[in-house]
Amino acid sequence: MALIVQKYGGSSVVNTDRIKNVAQRVAEYRRRGDQVIVVVSAMGGVTDRLISLAHDIMPVPTEREMDMLLATGEQTTIALTAMALHALNISAISLTGAQAGIETDGMHTKAKIKNITPKQVHQILDQGHVVIVAGFQGQTREGHITTLGRGGSDLTAIAIAAAVKADLCQIYTDVDGVYTTDPRIVPHAKKLDEISYDEMLELASSGAKVMQSRSVEFAKKFRVTFEVRSSLNQNPGTIVKEETANMEHIVVRGVSLDKHQAKATLIGVPDRPGVASQIFKALNEAAVNVDMIVQNVGHGTNPTTDLSFTVERTDLPKSREVIDALATEVGFTDIVTQEEMGKLSVVGVGMKSHSGIAAKLFEVLAEEEINIDMISTSEIKLSVVVSLAQGERALKAAHDAFIGWNSSPSGSGRLRKHRNGEWSLTPKPSSLSQMPSTT
Amino acid sequence: MALIVQKYGGSSVVNTDRIKNVAQRVAEYRRRGDQVIVVVSAMGGVTDRLISLAHDIMPVPTEREMDMLLATGEQTTIALTAMALHALNISAISLTGAQAGIETDGMHTKAKIKNITPKQVHQILDQGHVVIVAGFQGQTREGHITTLGRGGSDLTAIAIAAAVKADLCQIYTDVDGVYTTDPRIVPHAKKLDEISYDEMLELASSGAKVMQSRSVEFAKKFRVTFEVRSSLNQNPGTIVKEETANMEHIVVRGVSLDKHQAKATLIGVPDRPGVASQIFKALNEAAVNVDMIVQNVGHGTNPTTDLSFTVERTDLPKSREVIDALATEVGFTDIVTQEEMGKLSVVGVGMKSHSGIAAKLFEVLAEEEINIDMISTSEIKLSVVVSLAQGERALKAAHDAFIGWNSSPSGSGRLRKHRNGEWSLTPKPSSLSQMPSTT
Repeated sequence: MALIVQKYGGSSVVNTDRIKNVAQRVAEYRRRGDQVIVVVSAMGGVTDRLISLAHDIMPVPTEREMDMLLATGEQTTIALTAMALHALNISAISLTGAQAGIETDGMHTKAKIKNITPKQVHQILDQGHVVIVAGFQGQTREGHITTLGRGGSDLTAIAIAAAVKADLCQIYTDVDGVYTTDPRIVPHAKKLDEISYDEMLELASSGAKVMQSRSVEFAKKFRVTFEVRSSLNQNPGTIVKEETANMEHIVVRGVSLDKHQAKATLIGVPDRPGVASQIFKALNEAAVNVDMIVQNVGHGTNPTTDLSFTVERTDLPKSREVIDALATEVGFTDIVTQEEMGKLSVVGVGMKSHSGIAAKLFEVLAEEEINIDMISTSEIKLSVVVSLAQGERALKAAHDAFIGWNSSPSGSGRLRKHRNGEWSLTPKPSSLSQMPSTT
Repeated sequence: MALIVQKYGGSSVVNTDRIKNVAQRVAEYRRRGDQVIVVVSAMGGVTDRLISLAHDIMPVPTEREMDMLLATGEQTTIALTAMALHALNISAISLTGAQAGIETDGMHTKAKIKNITPKQVHQILDQGHVVIVAGFQGQTREGHITTLGRGGSDLTAIAIAAAVKADLCQIYTDVDGVYTTDPRIVPHAKKLDEISYDEMLELASSGAKVMQSRSVEFAKKFRVTFEVRSSLNQNPGTIVKEETANMEHIVVRGVSLDKHQAKATLIGVPDRPGVASQIFKALNEAAVNVDMIVQNVGHGTNPTTDLSFTVERTDLPKSREVIDALATEVGFTDIVTQEEMGKLSVVGVGMKSHSGIAAKLFEVLAEEEINIDMISTSEIKLSVVVSLAQGERALKAAHDAFIGWNSSPSGSGRLRKHRNGEWSLTPKPSSLSQMPSTT
């Protein structure tokens, strides 16, 4: 008998038939004796309809009332999910975020969880019921209803799993788990059996949108191991957990492509202390999120240099305004922007103890005649900026080089580093080998 | 400066435009300095949609979860109503039933209000905000969400008005107030300026469906004077209040017709003690609500009598089953049922101190050649059962006789009783006199 937290997102509860499917799955676990806490989102589309009602009333709805309004979405789902379990003769009791003891700060529409008092959850479990908790919501100490912002239901599930010390936390979604890269771009991308929090975070911040980073960060902080899996089938998913020594055998866990990058280059920037600070302070004040920055050292008596940085494409016009306003003060000669850029990232905890990944990536891209614009590295990630037009080709080349065609950790179709420092790449199998045999 | 409670029903908040209208009205009161508590229902149609979702899940949804589900309807309206006030620069804070301190018993889907702790309501009012409260809902001492059943939002408004000692309680609806009779049947029915709780209750129990009896009973118990008025115009409505000596000057306040009656007559019932008790105990156990009962005294050595009673038409088949099962035991000779019956009621506190109403009603109906099947009287009500086919004609005749064509209490177009015990009926004016003059 285990204590399990299961979270079902909006697409898993989009209509009453899907809610009945969720109940079937919960019932399976319950019937084998597990205690189950179910966290559900609003039925797909409901939140958008509520937001549209609010916008009919006023263009920028007040945030406290927006939370009062949006909280009804999840409350509807918990009641229907409890009924669906009752229809299967499984006893279940639904709780709003407030009733489940989820206390947040008062930042309406993007509240942070401050504390969870799962007294009532434990009581209901002990009485033999399934507990259904409304995701995405909580209440302040003063009793105001709050919502947690994007990805809030995942956060609810992971926070409750931490609070009740659950044996298992399952995040049900409409994909089978976390993949080595986007299967829509690289069809032979592989589902990962496991991934560390840090790898998951680096992939998320690099454009892979399985989960919001804040939920993964919360899980990391409270050491909650969770599984991302599909509500449409019985396949095992991907376990997200603390890094283990064993994980380092796999050098590269995944590769991702962020297609929403843009690049700005300031030409002829005076190479003196304080100039960079002046520029990036102004961008920060304008709420522009700068990602990569590259600056070279100047030469000569009045040294100047070129300074490049990347931002989200939608922030580029605002960035230009900020920079233009600084032109006289800073004294650069020109600004050049490139709107259509992509960021390719290679992620893996194994990179900590393996050298040569960067060199190999450059080699692979050079073979594809893809130019690298900017480079950035962290302990477990290597990112390069390339032109967006070449992005998907770069992603495929990197995936084939570092991950290959076979998903097993010791698989043959991948780049391997030998003790002498050399890399070898097993040839790609023909795509026919991916087809089921008909003999 | 007054403390006002206003309640708006489902048709007054059926869409965002109507919610904006409600906000305009609330804003008018607020701007002249009144403190306002607004109680709102679910947007028209929302509750039915939620019930239909629940029925998709299970045929008889569990009641606790039904309450959890239905409570979202009013919660949606309070948030949108608060936003609509914000859009008019009126500060407002919404509260669920639980947050407003409405404590109920645990009878889910038909809970009774046990207590109201309006501490938070007072605090918010004192801070200068309008308070928007979700009607129809509360919570148990243990923190479970409950709903109050039919007419629950009226009850919320009247209970809060009692708890905060409001100066005024306004029930906004889609009619102008309480009428002397149903204007769809008698077009010259008059809106009443005032009516006593008891008259309102007798009219409600006689088929006039302005408000559920329980809300009026609650208002009577806690002496809450309230006004029923329209949210579509600025007309004054009908004041419902304690009976005053002045009210007795009007003998008949209103007449009503309940079209859903059916009659059963048991022929040849042995006239001995205990027989009636046997029959009506069995009907009660089958949850059949018996309204009128008529029994005559038998004659002779083995006396038998005929026993008639009325029930709601929908309860007639069940009543027959119960009676048929008793046939041998009780020993009556036959049962005759009449499905299509109507109950005409004449209501007024003035009837307490005026005699001869019954005689006059019988005379009026005799003139119309309408046969009276059964008669029942109370201190302030006289009801007769007639065939449904003659019901509306009977209603018109009674309305014209007792209330007439002119609404003023001393109006000429009505039946009046003189000191010598005689009645006189001023002739009906021609219908032209109702038309506005064009000269």
